[in-house]
Amino acid sequence: MATPVNPPRGMRDFLPADKARREHALGVIREVYRAHGFDEIETPVVEDWARLHAGLGGDNEKLSFSILKRGISPEALAAAAESGNAEELADLGLRFDLTVPLTRFYATHRAELPPVFRAIQIAPVWRAERPQKGRYRQFVQADIDIIGEPGPLAEIELITATSAALAALGLAGCVIRVNDRRILFGLLEHCGFAPDQHDRALITVDKLDKIGAAGVVEELRELDAAAAARLGEVLAAVEPRLSGDGIPLTREAMREALPAAGADAAGADSAGIAAGVEHLAGLGEALLGGLPEGVALRFDPTLVRGMGYYTGTIFEVAHPGSGSSVGGGGRYDGMVGRFLGQDVPAVGFSIGFERVVDLIELPEGDGPDAVALVFDADASPADLAALKRELVARGHRVRLEKRQKNMRALLDRVAGEGFTRFAAVPAGVRDADALEL
Amino acid sequence: MATPVNPPRGMRDFLPADKARREHALGVIREVYRAHGFDEIETPVVEDWARLHAGLGGDNEKLSFSILKRGISPEALAAAAESGNAEELADLGLRFDLTVPLTRFYATHRAELPPVFRAIQIAPVWRAERPQKGRYRQFVQADIDIIGEPGPLAEIELITATSAALAALGLAGCVIRVNDRRILFGLLEHCGFAPDQHDRALITVDKLDKIGAAGVVEELRELDAAAAARLGEVLAAVEPRLSGDGIPLTREAMREALPAAGADAAGADSAGIAAGVEHLAGLGEALLGGLPEGVALRFDPTLVRGMGYYTGTIFEVAHPGSGSSVGGGGRYDGMVGRFLGQDVPAVGFSIGFERVVDLIELPEGDGPDAVALVFDADASPADLAALKRELVARGHRVRLEKRQKNMRALLDRVAGEGFTRFAAVPAGVRDADALEL
Repeated sequence: MATPVNPPRGMRDFLPADKARREHALGVIREVYRAHGFDEIETPVVEDWARLHAGLGGDNEKLSFSILKRGISPEALAAAAESGNAEELADLGLRFDLTVPLTRFYATHRAELPPVFRAIQIAPVWRAERPQKGRYRQFVQADIDIIGEPGPLAEIELITATSAALAALGLAGCVIRVNDRRILFGLLEHCGFAPDQHDRALITVDKLDKIGAAGVVEELRELDAAAAARLGEVLAAVEPRLSGDGIPLTREAMREALPAAGADAAGADSAGIAAGVEHLAGLGEALLGGLPEGVALRFDPTLVRGMGYYTGTIFEVAHPGSGSSVGGGGRYDGMVGRFLGQDVPAVGFSIGFERVVDLIELPEGDGPDAVALVFDADASPADLAALKRELVARGHRVRLEKRQKNMRALLDRVAGEGFTRFAAVPAGVRDADALEL
Repeated sequence: MATPVNPPRGMRDFLPADKARREHALGVIREVYRAHGFDEIETPVVEDWARLHAGLGGDNEKLSFSILKRGISPEALAAAAESGNAEELADLGLRFDLTVPLTRFYATHRAELPPVFRAIQIAPVWRAERPQKGRYRQFVQADIDIIGEPGPLAEIELITATSAALAALGLAGCVIRVNDRRILFGLLEHCGFAPDQHDRALITVDKLDKIGAAGVVEELRELDAAAAARLGEVLAAVEPRLSGDGIPLTREAMREALPAAGADAAGADSAGIAAGVEHLAGLGEALLGGLPEGVALRFDPTLVRGMGYYTGTIFEVAHPGSGSSVGGGGRYDGMVGRFLGQDVPAVGFSIGFERVVDLIELPEGDGPDAVALVFDADASPADLAALKRELVARGHRVRLEKRQKNMRALLDRVAGEGFTRFAAVPAGVRDADALEL
């Protein structure tokens, strides 16, 4: 039975070197998040099918892998064939993000959790996307969320911890762009879009970096030509400010970037813009001077973030080595409450682990403590076991390697696997002191 | 939308204390296995449906969760309804063990792996079993396997590393029972069972601890009454030796336990028994004196292990705190080759992580470095952020906690979460030196 032996489409195996690299990076992230007072939790990889299709996951819901019920009856199969809906046969699905499971987890365990709950989730998610370079059907997300804190302290703690994690990974040059949904809605209001057009307009603004200001105007013309033209002026005025050092998160710089935007319409800022600017200025005050070297914070009033559930602050991390964002998140105050029937404030920040892990450099090898013992084919297993045991007890990582004709090739391979010291085992030796390491 | 909020049936959420406990235990296991020269790998949680149902997984194949194909056509649904087989609609499934994925991984990547490959896999598997106490539908296995080593060194390294991991977890009192499939088949031959009855007979012998020797005889009478009676004598003679200190893994002790068993039939040992005893005696010599304190090695000629793919040594770990085994494994030389069209020797040892994690004690709390800062509701977020940053930089784990009326309850809760030091933050303070920790 010689069958094809690849992993499923769009999914990956990790060989030892890759796996070590990933575990190292995950360990760094986990340690930083714990130091910042977050607690790790875990949920099952599957959730009820209905929960994964309750409208909280946006387009990701359509990309969900569904799991067949066990013991499907002929009647149920016939009914599904009748309706043409295979999903009737599914009762579970693989999670497509860590946010839907977190909201379910919080609803399940609220009574056992502290009033302000700081969660770490580092785990795989699955999306049936068309596989392409850098996009996988199973990939790891590293999320922190703060549930129960309505004030800016939540955003401050999240941005501080995430910046620290990125810096600890050695990822220099990160820029965290920040915006507030209230500013976005305020700008749309200024330009003259009706409230029921706002969501539709944001979908287009979200494509700004792909289609440009002219493209946004073109696409929104059918909605309201005058408002679209005004929005075009706003974007054209803002765009040049976003390059170079960008707009700092200070009240003055943000006001300078925004009134020029809103002036054409109502002249004065909307309440949303004012509230958003005040909020972001507070974040800026708390964060400026405290971010690790190599991490910058910028205001970007054109930042939208795709998910519809965001209600306030939104943020996204760019890195010069990656074409797309390496992390992002925001405030989603309405979402957790949907399972509880009450509002619960929440903010989350997710690191796109797969993109980050490709950008970082790692210490090579296992250091001077990794020893390969090269033995002859006729060596006594008992002697080898005793030697290995003794060296492990002394704190070494030990690999037994049978001598081969091409010793150069063996040593090269083992060195590539991280072993930096070698010793030939003479026949009959079971005392580690007799080895020349 | 207030909907039920439990995790899916038979699956579990892990709250911070549980998750910390699990991660600690996984870290201990991982570190020991790495020290013993094993390398961690990872495969996707799903494999092709056909591979999961190729006959390598025994009864577990029936417990596999299947994943619906995406975009199922009405025609495909109608065809499945016609045949009554819902599984036609699945193309993937969640893995039910780590062995089937490992054999697939090895076949995929053989050219990139060393000639003797020592793999660590620590990962969840899924089985749609009827949930019951201690049995879950998602659970973690911690496996090590050595592929490519035909000699006893593989078994010796696996048993040494697993013993070391159990000892490092603080699991005192473990007994590793060892047998060889060749001894089992030799015994059946001695008793007079025909070769084509052996597999059937082993299924019954596997139930010995549940139905006793008399039950085994009763069940096998229909196969061959005389052979069943002889097997009953063998088992009756061996059983008393298994209690107390059991049978040590020495040539003499094993021979003493076995000939009495075989004498009724052929008088002399079969070739299989002789080969098995020699092999196990070699393991005993290499391992005795080298096992960590609290781990014992015993010969158990009645040990069967369920899976049909084992070809030589088999082992199982018992612990007085657990009703069922906490680990097991064996040699499965024929299995890896099925994907390659050639024989590849392989041995594996799996720790039943869910059973082990409930047996171990963990250091409580996060130690003296975990600090909770209690602040007033009107404290400045910027001050709090600066204080926290400074304490984290000094190596503390830091949690911000808003003052509440019942401070006793707050301090109790936070202490329960592992924070051993507290400080009230006076208004306006952002210098960590001004805190009384």
